[in-house]
Amino acid sequence: MRTILIIGAGRSASSLIQYLLSKSETEQLHLVIGDLSLELAQKKTNNHPNATPIALDIFNMQQRQDAIQKATIVISMLPAHLHIEVAKDCVLFQKHMVTASYISEAMQSLDAEVKAKGLIFMNEIGLDPGIDHMSAMKVIDEIKEKGGKMLLFESFCGGLVAPESDDNIWNYKFTWAPRNVVLAGQGGAAKFIQEGAYKYIPYCNLFRRTEFLEVEGYGRFEAYSNRDSLKYRSVYGLDDVLTLYRGTIRRVGFSKAWNMFVQLGMTDDSYIMEGSEEMTYRQFVNSFLPYHPTDSVELKMRHILKIDQDDIMWDKLVELDLFSRIKKVGLKDATPAQILEKILSDSWTLQPEDKDMIVMYHKFGYELNGITSQIDSKMVCIGDDQMYTAMAKTVGLPVAMAALLILNGKIQTSGVQLPIQKEVYEPILNELELYGVVFNEQAMPYMGYNPDKVFN
Amino acid sequence: MRTILIIGAGRSASSLIQYLLSKSETEQLHLVIGDLSLELAQKKTNNHPNATPIALDIFNMQQRQDAIQKATIVISMLPAHLHIEVAKDCVLFQKHMVTASYISEAMQSLDAEVKAKGLIFMNEIGLDPGIDHMSAMKVIDEIKEKGGKMLLFESFCGGLVAPESDDNIWNYKFTWAPRNVVLAGQGGAAKFIQEGAYKYIPYCNLFRRTEFLEVEGYGRFEAYSNRDSLKYRSVYGLDDVLTLYRGTIRRVGFSKAWNMFVQLGMTDDSYIMEGSEEMTYRQFVNSFLPYHPTDSVELKMRHILKIDQDDIMWDKLVELDLFSRIKKVGLKDATPAQILEKILSDSWTLQPEDKDMIVMYHKFGYELNGITSQIDSKMVCIGDDQMYTAMAKTVGLPVAMAALLILNGKIQTSGVQLPIQKEVYEPILNELELYGVVFNEQAMPYMGYNPDKVFN
Repeated sequence: MRTILIIGAGRSASSLIQYLLSKSETEQLHLVIGDLSLELAQKKTNNHPNATPIALDIFNMQQRQDAIQKATIVISMLPAHLHIEVAKDCVLFQKHMVTASYISEAMQSLDAEVKAKGLIFMNEIGLDPGIDHMSAMKVIDEIKEKGGKMLLFESFCGGLVAPESDDNIWNYKFTWAPRNVVLAGQGGAAKFIQEGAYKYIPYCNLFRRTEFLEVEGYGRFEAYSNRDSLKYRSVYGLDDVLTLYRGTIRRVGFSKAWNMFVQLGMTDDSYIMEGSEEMTYRQFVNSFLPYHPTDSVELKMRHILKIDQDDIMWDKLVELDLFSRIKKVGLKDATPAQILEKILSDSWTLQPEDKDMIVMYHKFGYELNGITSQIDSKMVCIGDDQMYTAMAKTVGLPVAMAALLILNGKIQTSGVQLPIQKEVYEPILNELELYGVVFNEQAMPYMGYNPDKVFN
Repeated sequence: MRTILIIGAGRSASSLIQYLLSKSETEQLHLVIGDLSLELAQKKTNNHPNATPIALDIFNMQQRQDAIQKATIVISMLPAHLHIEVAKDCVLFQKHMVTASYISEAMQSLDAEVKAKGLIFMNEIGLDPGIDHMSAMKVIDEIKEKGGKMLLFESFCGGLVAPESDDNIWNYKFTWAPRNVVLAGQGGAAKFIQEGAYKYIPYCNLFRRTEFLEVEGYGRFEAYSNRDSLKYRSVYGLDDVLTLYRGTIRRVGFSKAWNMFVQLGMTDDSYIMEGSEEMTYRQFVNSFLPYHPTDSVELKMRHILKIDQDDIMWDKLVELDLFSRIKKVGLKDATPAQILEKILSDSWTLQPEDKDMIVMYHKFGYELNGITSQIDSKMVCIGDDQMYTAMAKTVGLPVAMAALLILNGKIQTSGVQLPIQKEVYEPILNELELYGVVFNEQAMPYMGYNPDKVFN
């Protein structure tokens, strides 16, 4: 038996655990599932004979090191900043490690030691980062192998509500950490390249500079720019590419409506609002509007945001019950962002029967033998239920598959890594198809932003 | 002879030095003027028999301590973060000290020692902070002495170009640190109180939420909110006041036009633009606009900012030569804010014959014997020339006067202070009138934001 230690049994671990348990007989796996909450770990093991739930506090060195020493490989599903404690022990006790998180500087600094010991620390192998890397590198490698030259790479991903559960006029529900949704785009201008020109978008314009995406069978989506489009330029071998853009997918109209919150200052997480606990939703809104003794909050809001009486934007605000004189915030010393998250959660929490949906969309523009072409690669994944959500599947399955490939010696390159090598992405993308994570690749004429090479 | 050591002989020291030299015979003063640049110190002393220019590097402990030991009182006109080195030596050698800067935490922490040694460290005694404190406290104290209860305090200040030199359609030139103008309002939401309700304005809305101010003989101005309206609530004894608001004064239309830069992201100082040195002004603008092979920068700009063809906003952009294909930025590794500052400096630098102007405007609302009333207090100061600007006068004269009052034992309260006590503001405000810094106080009906006490 090979022992896989899984640290963290939260939402994103469901499909991961299910997958590994389903392979536990044929692959001779024993899972040890550790969580601060023993109850949660027990729930996820569901009395399976090949799984042992344990209570595990990773700040308890004895507990942590005991568990890691007994494992063959360690999967950390902890919050990103906590991986490093586990990683150091994995180096110490010579264990492989897998995470779905971005490689932190601390993690990267272990690379030499990890390599020296012949270990594999596979990171960024969830959904985004993860499936985005793998599905992109597969096509980029294919194009390059044919002798093609990459001109354009655009990559979009979004966690949304499935069409059958899409029953509000925002066409959105929280399917992942709501806090990250509220804070999305903050912390600096978005930076990307279009046709060789660097472009920058400030936060206050971010949700007005969207572009449309069509996915057959699912209709039209929109995407706003991520901050970090250039982050993987070198990693993907795209140093000379003319267009590089990464974005977040929403249903059309979401961003324009979200921008109302941005303009009013409701997404600010940098200060505490006076009297937040006893504040009504209406008072919260009024805090961002000029004082007037008689003008209504509604009219001040319409005026400042220039919302006509028949504009759907207004209905979106009303749907959230934003002007309620009754509902109270109930959060002490809260920031505007925390209060907004609270208000949105009333309306945007997934109901027991609701399903979520992941949409990923890549565009690859290239030149081969003097001809420009484009491949669009699209993936839609719908959740099974509230336990095995599309998010849990797409984050957890690649992690589980990578762990098994490492155990079986199929992934061999040592060091602190992300999944951009063929030995990683090929078997995992193939196997993901069995679980409904299928990319449809489509050859089409090169669109780019200047396909006719016009110069102004 | 009493020796006054003045550290820093820059622009804001001109009127300060002139004032003290003019008093040097009658008051038996000897000025030692120290600056990193001996030449600058020499220029400011102008061979006056009662002044000695010296080269002074405040990071040279020997030099610094020698100079401070020989002084009776020390005036520091250094950048704010450098005062603390001087202040510690002033404690050590038991010298009084005067600065025009906000009291830093480091400065405040010296309070107990300063008091124990019977010293006076007078800070925030320039224009803003300085004259604003004094002119406000004078009226607030008068109202309270009569038994009045303060309801409203609003305070506005702006450094502008004088009407006779106001020859661009922005009605603005840089009369002080341009960098601070470009970065104004960044770093967090503006926070204030109107009629007891806390109000917050995010940066992206700051320049659209202005209010108008009328100054007889000078026409209409506008003001946008400062970040820190509540900072002096307790210091001024206004804990129960219903309305507290501080703002920055500009000519009408400036803020609406400035907001174009904010919306595009041109005031961002947090990242470096690729290829800034060789970039033309036009390319700089285009970096914030969507890519298109044929649409002009001009049309993209009009479209994104919704500027009609006959809108004066457009002329303001053209006046800055913002679309020049020829003019290059010429700054290596520059941020958007640094580049914008460079472009604006082409148009907004004071010419040799130009004069500047300071405008200050306070509103005091109060209730006395059941009757609500208001006092508006306004001050306009025009510069003499480029050496003795309104800014140099209003910043430097109160500093100089405070130093002399301390030397003559007229200011007696020891400790780390700001000028809110009668013993400070009364003699200084009186003397400032001789130099053209005159507040016109005007009794008027209480305006407030809800004078009729209507409840919605």
